[in-house]
Amino acid sequence: MKLCMVGAWGHSIYTLESLPDLPEIELTGLYSGNTDSPGCLLAESQKLGFTPHVYADYVAMLDTENPDIVSIDGRFDEHAFMCIEALRRGIHVFCEKPIALTLSDLEKIEEVWKGGSAKLISMVGLRYDPAMYHAHKLVEQGAIGKIKLIYAQKSYRLGIRPEHFKKRSTYGGTIPWVGSHALDWILWFSGSSFETIFATQSCEDNFDNGELEIAAQCLFTMKSGVLAEASIDYLRPAAAPSHGDDRVRIAGTSGVIEVRGGKIILIDAAGEQVIEPPVPDRKIFSDFVYDIEGKRPALADARQTFDLTRACLLTQKSADEHALIHFSAL
Amino acid sequence: MKLCMVGAWGHSIYTLESLPDLPEIELTGLYSGNTDSPGCLLAESQKLGFTPHVYADYVAMLDTENPDIVSIDGRFDEHAFMCIEALRRGIHVFCEKPIALTLSDLEKIEEVWKGGSAKLISMVGLRYDPAMYHAHKLVEQGAIGKIKLIYAQKSYRLGIRPEHFKKRSTYGGTIPWVGSHALDWILWFSGSSFETIFATQSCEDNFDNGELEIAAQCLFTMKSGVLAEASIDYLRPAAAPSHGDDRVRIAGTSGVIEVRGGKIILIDAAGEQVIEPPVPDRKIFSDFVYDIEGKRPALADARQTFDLTRACLLTQKSADEHALIHFSAL
Repeated sequence: MKLCMVGAWGHSIYTLESLPDLPEIELTGLYSGNTDSPGCLLAESQKLGFTPHVYADYVAMLDTENPDIVSIDGRFDEHAFMCIEALRRGIHVFCEKPIALTLSDLEKIEEVWKGGSAKLISMVGLRYDPAMYHAHKLVEQGAIGKIKLIYAQKSYRLGIRPEHFKKRSTYGGTIPWVGSHALDWILWFSGSSFETIFATQSCEDNFDNGELEIAAQCLFTMKSGVLAEASIDYLRPAAAPSHGDDRVRIAGTSGVIEVRGGKIILIDAAGEQVIEPPVPDRKIFSDFVYDIEGKRPALADARQTFDLTRACLLTQKSADEHALIHFSAL
Repeated sequence: MKLCMVGAWGHSIYTLESLPDLPEIELTGLYSGNTDSPGCLLAESQKLGFTPHVYADYVAMLDTENPDIVSIDGRFDEHAFMCIEALRRGIHVFCEKPIALTLSDLEKIEEVWKGGSAKLISMVGLRYDPAMYHAHKLVEQGAIGKIKLIYAQKSYRLGIRPEHFKKRSTYGGTIPWVGSHALDWILWFSGSSFETIFATQSCEDNFDNGELEIAAQCLFTMKSGVLAEASIDYLRPAAAPSHGDDRVRIAGTSGVIEVRGGKIILIDAAGEQVIEPPVPDRKIFSDFVYDIEGKRPALADARQTFDLTRACLLTQKSADEHALIHFSAL
């Protein structure tokens, strides 16, 4: 299968890390926007033994290479356009989060997707985190009984953010960009969908990062009755022991499971135990390729990607308007 | 000073633990409702060297003993009545949470309090927890800069709950009863007051505990701009290493501080450190007595008790009605 790649603005590493496991994939084309680092992506490709053609135009790359899959990691505000151009050519899409910065762009992607048979995946990279992946297996196996309550946390170092993080029009907002992982864990662990959403945010004290929200919090009810909340911030100090303080705490009728510091803490009828998660037997990009090949379903599909993206954008809307959103009323 | 005590339904231990430090206090009267354990309270009093008179009627006790202070820990649904009867006699009130189960009862207490000079304190017992107390000192000293975001957690073992927990009319709800501590930490650490409240709850899967809510979550904005959320549950397994999993995580502009497992985790420009909190130099009941004596102000006063109780009851109302509450519109 032929693969083309776009940019290295975010998690193009997900694609690159899987290529050694995928002899069936040939990386034939690269497109790098005018402000990302094509050199880096080209160098990484060459290290993996590929000599992709470098394009100055995304659509020209698709038309010339006619790839089976495109991996999109360019400007956030071009994700939607790039997804649409690929899907309408029947090219499978692996895209950095979020696939769309507006609900109308999301609808356009979904419409094109419905009209074809290409697959699409995005937003769910942290289902493949070792601790999250193993915790989810334990929950599926009934480790904590029926889920009642979820707390999901994303806390990042702010660092020096590029200019496109400083405008809503090029960034999309902290809830979709950082919070999408928290919302995805809530959807994935609960196995349900959002019923109501209420969210808050603050862009004050954001260290001169323009419109970037430095903190946000969200409260959800799920259709299943599960209660869930998310806490999102860029306030993790530079001297913290890791970039992100990703957490999930899930309380069920027969136990509480928590992912914190890359470990799993499980409290059940036997007491408390700390579990070191094994290395997952999946990686996100190869999982997507195997799904396309019909070998096994990936952890998420296009439908889940669309639902999650819509939830992120509606949560952002709730925070923007300080208003409660009922999904059933949409 | 003369002290009378009512019941041992909750935290009467707070009063008893301070008596050895307070030679100025004489415990002269006990009133025990018809379903609590007077024997236990009497036995504890006698161990401390007191021979209080035992009353079968609360008002008769107040009128006969005419105490300076009453410590109330009887039926939850009698707290308000007992506070009012004491305050209107000029007796200082130390009361178990919550002082009132309804907003109208709260207003009545406040009205009587305004008409006299007696002091009242309630609801703030966990400000005196060693880790919370020391973390608050660190925050006051600027350890994390300007506070942006707070997460407060109360997770209790359910155990076997007495009958009065199973009806809203005798219990008051999980948000006021368990959640009051979380709301108090939010008020105390932020140094602000609530601007908006939205809360959710669930009484399904409550192990046959009638109307008791097994889980609740709350999302707040504070007048100062701080974002805050609380997670409250009775889902801590019986085999967990402690009764409660009390936590606070506060992210500020120059650090993140967390209280978890009785320890303080501080991340700032110097990296991450775990701090073992010292034993506080205050206990809640002696602090109240010293406040009455004019020796030093306690950590909280009647005004804060009323504000916290009102916030708890409005948060409960938000969860009951699944509606956003704006304080400025009240």
